[in-house]
Amino acid sequence: MKLSPLKRYLLAPGPTPVPPEVLLRTASPTIHHRTPEFEAIVKQVRVRLKQVFQTEQDVLVLACSGTGAMEAAIVNTCSAGDTVLCVNGGKFGERWMKICRTYGIEVEEVRVEWGSPVDPSAIETALRRRPEIKAVLVQASETSTTVLHPIEAIAAITRPRGVLLMVDGITAVGVTDMPMDRWGIDVLVSGSQKAFMLPPGLAFIALSERAWEAGKSARLPRFYFDLKRERDSLQKNTTAYTPAVNLIYGLHAALGMILEEGLAQVFARHERLARATRAGVTALGLELVAPRAPSPATTGLFTPPQLDGGALQKYLRNALGVEVAGGQDQFKGKVLRLAHLGYIGDFDVLTCLAAVELGLARFGLEVPLGRGVAAAETIIVAALPAPARD
Amino acid sequence: MKLSPLKRYLLAPGPTPVPPEVLLRTASPTIHHRTPEFEAIVKQVRVRLKQVFQTEQDVLVLACSGTGAMEAAIVNTCSAGDTVLCVNGGKFGERWMKICRTYGIEVEEVRVEWGSPVDPSAIETALRRRPEIKAVLVQASETSTTVLHPIEAIAAITRPRGVLLMVDGITAVGVTDMPMDRWGIDVLVSGSQKAFMLPPGLAFIALSERAWEAGKSARLPRFYFDLKRERDSLQKNTTAYTPAVNLIYGLHAALGMILEEGLAQVFARHERLARATRAGVTALGLELVAPRAPSPATTGLFTPPQLDGGALQKYLRNALGVEVAGGQDQFKGKVLRLAHLGYIGDFDVLTCLAAVELGLARFGLEVPLGRGVAAAETIIVAALPAPARD
Repeated sequence: MKLSPLKRYLLAPGPTPVPPEVLLRTASPTIHHRTPEFEAIVKQVRVRLKQVFQTEQDVLVLACSGTGAMEAAIVNTCSAGDTVLCVNGGKFGERWMKICRTYGIEVEEVRVEWGSPVDPSAIETALRRRPEIKAVLVQASETSTTVLHPIEAIAAITRPRGVLLMVDGITAVGVTDMPMDRWGIDVLVSGSQKAFMLPPGLAFIALSERAWEAGKSARLPRFYFDLKRERDSLQKNTTAYTPAVNLIYGLHAALGMILEEGLAQVFARHERLARATRAGVTALGLELVAPRAPSPATTGLFTPPQLDGGALQKYLRNALGVEVAGGQDQFKGKVLRLAHLGYIGDFDVLTCLAAVELGLARFGLEVPLGRGVAAAETIIVAALPAPARD
Repeated sequence: MKLSPLKRYLLAPGPTPVPPEVLLRTASPTIHHRTPEFEAIVKQVRVRLKQVFQTEQDVLVLACSGTGAMEAAIVNTCSAGDTVLCVNGGKFGERWMKICRTYGIEVEEVRVEWGSPVDPSAIETALRRRPEIKAVLVQASETSTTVLHPIEAIAAITRPRGVLLMVDGITAVGVTDMPMDRWGIDVLVSGSQKAFMLPPGLAFIALSERAWEAGKSARLPRFYFDLKRERDSLQKNTTAYTPAVNLIYGLHAALGMILEEGLAQVFARHERLARATRAGVTALGLELVAPRAPSPATTGLFTPPQLDGGALQKYLRNALGVEVAGGQDQFKGKVLRLAHLGYIGDFDVLTCLAAVELGLARFGLEVPLGRGVAAAETIIVAALPAPARD
């Protein structure tokens, strides 16, 4: 049983909705990639990606998921036997560690309670204790716990020490201000299906001069993910291997939309939607997963203990058409994650909160219907443009 | 200045949103219409349209707007000098009259206050007073005033008298139960861009045996709108002139969706969304335009007298991306019309009410933000399916 018409609302932290104009671009006829026509697109994409990554470096476009770019970050900068420090406060922190261990890299772990941001002083202490640590690997936005880690503060620790800072910015680049060059991030990774408003299939990675330098002595094997080869190709406005042509059409269009809106406005928009969502969740008497350092990409909430959060999530998907994320591992069945990054707008946030209200009510809870929506509207109304004066 | 991303919500009473699966069908390669492949589609469309119109008669598919089908209704059944009775309670009642007068038909008018349904006894009185009246022309749902006229009661008056009943069902067929044959409607007209969930460009018309019979002596000139010729063609699974091929692909798909859902469910869905909308409007302290006989297709509300309703409507469109209709003529600047027909779902209704709340607040009114949404949620939650039991 389900609502009819069952419209689909993709409000999970990736894949995110794709604007119709971008979808139409990706549906344009596929052309050959070794042509002046395609190279002209790549040339513009190259310029635009640097602006979004806020770097002078080339941002490489890989046909892979974000995980592929995380692996590329490691195999292009490290050697077996190196020691790195991983911030482990969620599923994606764990992923950094798993990739490192796959390649025989020794991992020093800074464990962080799920739902909390890392304390930069814990990183500083670890680096002081183990001066052999070559790199710090961290998420900017830890999607699994909806936490925003303090990257600027971490960069202030790594940069003067000559330790590489590798940041998984998969749900942060294009969401919140993350100026790669100014802060001193050495490797910054992102993916197409997040704030870039594209279908999955592309990942992006940029390396600082220090990271490229480290790559010269990095001895891990790499072929498809050989970033030096990709950079050489990109400087000729092409890619080393066959690019995902139609996704790059879409990337060209989506980057144009982001830059036309302006990065400052894009960040403010994500902040507004995040505040509206948190206000709605709190007004419903639900507890935030990451109240201290909430991600502007996704808001986590603890579902009431008397119900199965996983069943609620499935109900929202199957009966109401609203796709939010559930919790993983220790959060399984206890958490919903409501996304507000990329092509998600104010009315999507209201829809998401209404769906949570309706779902909780249908699961038999006493819910003040409309109260979450009302709280979010209060945030939104303050940001609305003034009516035109005649 | 506008929200970003400015998503577009088409919540006016036509054109209405088109489901993605229907849009994709209309984007299939155009084929020639004099082919077995296309005729196979027309054959299925023919069967499905009869089901939706609830008639044994053929439902003709014209490449024109609904107005074209209204004109076809008249020129195929009347002659210059005939007298007809038009129910005039809004813009579309006026349109019946204008078309009739264009063709030299004498019009007897039953005037109805905007916002009220016609009283069937007024029709009965007129027919008794002027037995030469050949036909009664009326809207089922008068879109301009959001009123539902009592077609079943009118048919009970026309049928035994041998007076033709011509019904503009443009925002009624597929919205509310309108069994053509059972009630005794003689001409029933509709259009693609309403409950049929298609882009504009097609109109539909069905004639009873009595109407076909009347057509034999109807002497108005007709060529493109010669329905006899269309019926002869349709019985060979084709059309007299070039059909709108890609819209007919879409029609095939959309009719499939409607019949898969089931007519009873489709009508119940429209009724639910209409009730939710009216509950929301009323909870905001706004007055309904048609409280006595509200259309299940669209809800009209009077905007607060201290503001310009036209400016509010434009603000919803331009700043919030929400397209609702304003008022026309005597309702201009005083009315908003919120549609809930076709591919409009529960969360669209909530979005529409939230947009009205936000807009009113931004125009400086004291608005209980969220209260309209809450009232609508109360209606919706009662209709939600039960969660699955493990």
